[in-house]
Amino acid sequence: MNLFITNIGQLVTVASNGKRCKTGKQMRELHILENAALLIENGIIKKIGNANELKPVEDIDVVDVEGKVVLPGFVDSHTHTVFAGSREHEFAMRAEGKTYQEIAEAGGGILSTMNATREASKRDLYRLAERRLTDMLRHGTTTIEIKSGYGLSPEAEMKILEVMNDLKRDHYATLVTTFLGAHAFPPEYKNDHNGYVEKICNYMLPYIAERNLAMFVDVFCEKGYFDLHQTEQIILEAKTHGLIPKLHADQLSSFGAAELGAKHNAISVDHLEQLTDASIEVLKNSQTVATVLPAASFFLNHPYAPARKIIDAGIPLAIATDFNPGSAMCYSMQIMLTIACTQMHMTPEEAITAATLNGAAALGLSQEVGSIEVGKQADVVVYDVKDYRYIPYHFGVNHVWKVVKNGVVLEF
Amino acid sequence: MNLFITNIGQLVTVASNGKRCKTGKQMRELHILENAALLIENGIIKKIGNANELKPVEDIDVVDVEGKVVLPGFVDSHTHTVFAGSREHEFAMRAEGKTYQEIAEAGGGILSTMNATREASKRDLYRLAERRLTDMLRHGTTTIEIKSGYGLSPEAEMKILEVMNDLKRDHYATLVTTFLGAHAFPPEYKNDHNGYVEKICNYMLPYIAERNLAMFVDVFCEKGYFDLHQTEQIILEAKTHGLIPKLHADQLSSFGAAELGAKHNAISVDHLEQLTDASIEVLKNSQTVATVLPAASFFLNHPYAPARKIIDAGIPLAIATDFNPGSAMCYSMQIMLTIACTQMHMTPEEAITAATLNGAAALGLSQEVGSIEVGKQADVVVYDVKDYRYIPYHFGVNHVWKVVKNGVVLEF
Repeated sequence: MNLFITNIGQLVTVASNGKRCKTGKQMRELHILENAALLIENGIIKKIGNANELKPVEDIDVVDVEGKVVLPGFVDSHTHTVFAGSREHEFAMRAEGKTYQEIAEAGGGILSTMNATREASKRDLYRLAERRLTDMLRHGTTTIEIKSGYGLSPEAEMKILEVMNDLKRDHYATLVTTFLGAHAFPPEYKNDHNGYVEKICNYMLPYIAERNLAMFVDVFCEKGYFDLHQTEQIILEAKTHGLIPKLHADQLSSFGAAELGAKHNAISVDHLEQLTDASIEVLKNSQTVATVLPAASFFLNHPYAPARKIIDAGIPLAIATDFNPGSAMCYSMQIMLTIACTQMHMTPEEAITAATLNGAAALGLSQEVGSIEVGKQADVVVYDVKDYRYIPYHFGVNHVWKVVKNGVVLEF
Repeated sequence: MNLFITNIGQLVTVASNGKRCKTGKQMRELHILENAALLIENGIIKKIGNANELKPVEDIDVVDVEGKVVLPGFVDSHTHTVFAGSREHEFAMRAEGKTYQEIAEAGGGILSTMNATREASKRDLYRLAERRLTDMLRHGTTTIEIKSGYGLSPEAEMKILEVMNDLKRDHYATLVTTFLGAHAFPPEYKNDHNGYVEKICNYMLPYIAERNLAMFVDVFCEKGYFDLHQTEQIILEAKTHGLIPKLHADQLSSFGAAELGAKHNAISVDHLEQLTDASIEVLKNSQTVATVLPAASFFLNHPYAPARKIIDAGIPLAIATDFNPGSAMCYSMQIMLTIACTQMHMTPEEAITAATLNGAAALGLSQEVGSIEVGKQADVVVYDVKDYRYIPYHFGVNHVWKVVKNGVVLEF
């Protein structure tokens, strides 16, 4: 937990000086130190300085990175990491031109993962997710939000939340738990959508809050899923229990979901592929983080969220993977940077800020993680590159050389 | 060089039964054996069978892959792997909205890599390329074409070709060498384009042919680069020396480059982003392979080649990375499969055929590599997945578990 890292070619601090996030032109300011060193004590960043001046204390492990680049660990603020089953056959069907509807009729879609997840034991779910989380660490992600939402019954949702909390206790990664019971309507409530909303409000939310199983509540607010009224019901009920809202908003259609999130101080509204200029105006006057999910657009060949407009409007923008088996089978934040730069007109600097500090803000954790500053958790990743821009530039490979989590050099 | 691989969950053979390549609906036929085993002798595939029936001979190394998936090594038939310098700053400028012209004026573009490559020693070029080639192997690519083309002077082009041939002799990967002196016009011939074409025809081609430095000749046939007439001059001269033509065709504009390639029996025409229906008709009646380069479109945010139309027309289609520092900084064929499936409407089966057997056909090597069949080179790659479709489906990570090259299990 005590560690001295030196000869850092570029220490990309993303320093915010106490600010929760960066907006607008600040997103391009990475505050890079060249030829830097880093002193970590008890898993916390203690000193940052020039490698010629800052020297290791006695009796401390020293890592000489020989001019490599160090970034804060990525904060992946939107994932669905706990699930069973795999949907490569649907991927193939989509490549053949099958529509989502045809795939759903053939037994695919969210409900296919729901079935596999309901059938899986806690132990199996734990092991599957543990392996994924470890690989995410290996690719530079040190803080990960996980949503439930493939159970869709009180029993199965609680099973998933318990697995998430077991992993949160056990795993090296910093985990954040979100309840997404409102991910889809389960078959049991196919003809009684409001009945499922009531089940969430009157049974699941109090149960979760009492046992402290989740910090956030999320709703898939979309046509054919949860409408504005149902979403608001869930948000309001969640708030009475102290859960903080997040929203899946404006992915497939635009009807005010992001604005609803802003109205209720959602910590983030996520997706935003269909975000309108009017909604951007509303978000501008809120505290809500706009989280874009490049993998979902890439994977489904859908339009990308208007990231450029969002940043230019001064709204804090975060990037996350949306890792899930249906619409974004990817947990590498490195390739998210590449997609953001090549497809979404973001600069490497903006993409890195969005994937670190602003991701932390989307989880209410930017006082602890997301940048390399004195007093923060020592979650830092060493990349085998000479320039931070090389990470999004050379894509399709893992540039991570070493991952340091809470001051511990991880061995994989 | 003798090896027994068993308990293969899916042995994706891409068998062609002696055919040079697959076209149309054949591209979907991967000829997969489940629960298979593979006997390799002297680096050559000797027997293929069921794991319950085929048993190892005595005194042979056995690799039990425990149900994993085995594919032929990828054949990357279009790369520019030998270069010095790095252009992440241009990548950042493009993300900021700078045009190619503005970047060129700021000292970027092909000429920036030309300058760095001219300045580099043979030893440096060798080391840089060696490291890249090894990482390509690590990602599942066992046969790699390399083009010269960042020298653009007789001396620098010969230096690059010598490095390529040194690597061909030394490196584990099977390498194929292409002369691309006609990649751009060097500053020395800025005002005398035909002078450079003559230098290629009258000096470089005979020199290369005499020393057997390249098997193929390639030309960047594009507006502002080499026009149809100059391209034809180079092709005709190359043929008299026994070099086989390939072409960069229809990338930025469409004016008959692919048709010119077909007319002269080019082994492949590559890029094809702007390929017209009329050119497809011409290619249909040729022996030329249509090679598409998904990374270039993705990286530059350009249109994709009409892969679906090409396949449906019955033209053999190959996929390659186009690995180069300007327009496609990627050498992972795995992510090429994903881009093909998500952006180009290709099925996983078509993409795999395009990246193996048809890539081999684009190099005239499909009797040796590109499929897992008795008598072929034992270039096989084991992936840590249960279904071959999982490889393009779960993107952004390297699924390779072991690489077997000429029957040798590589240790990295």
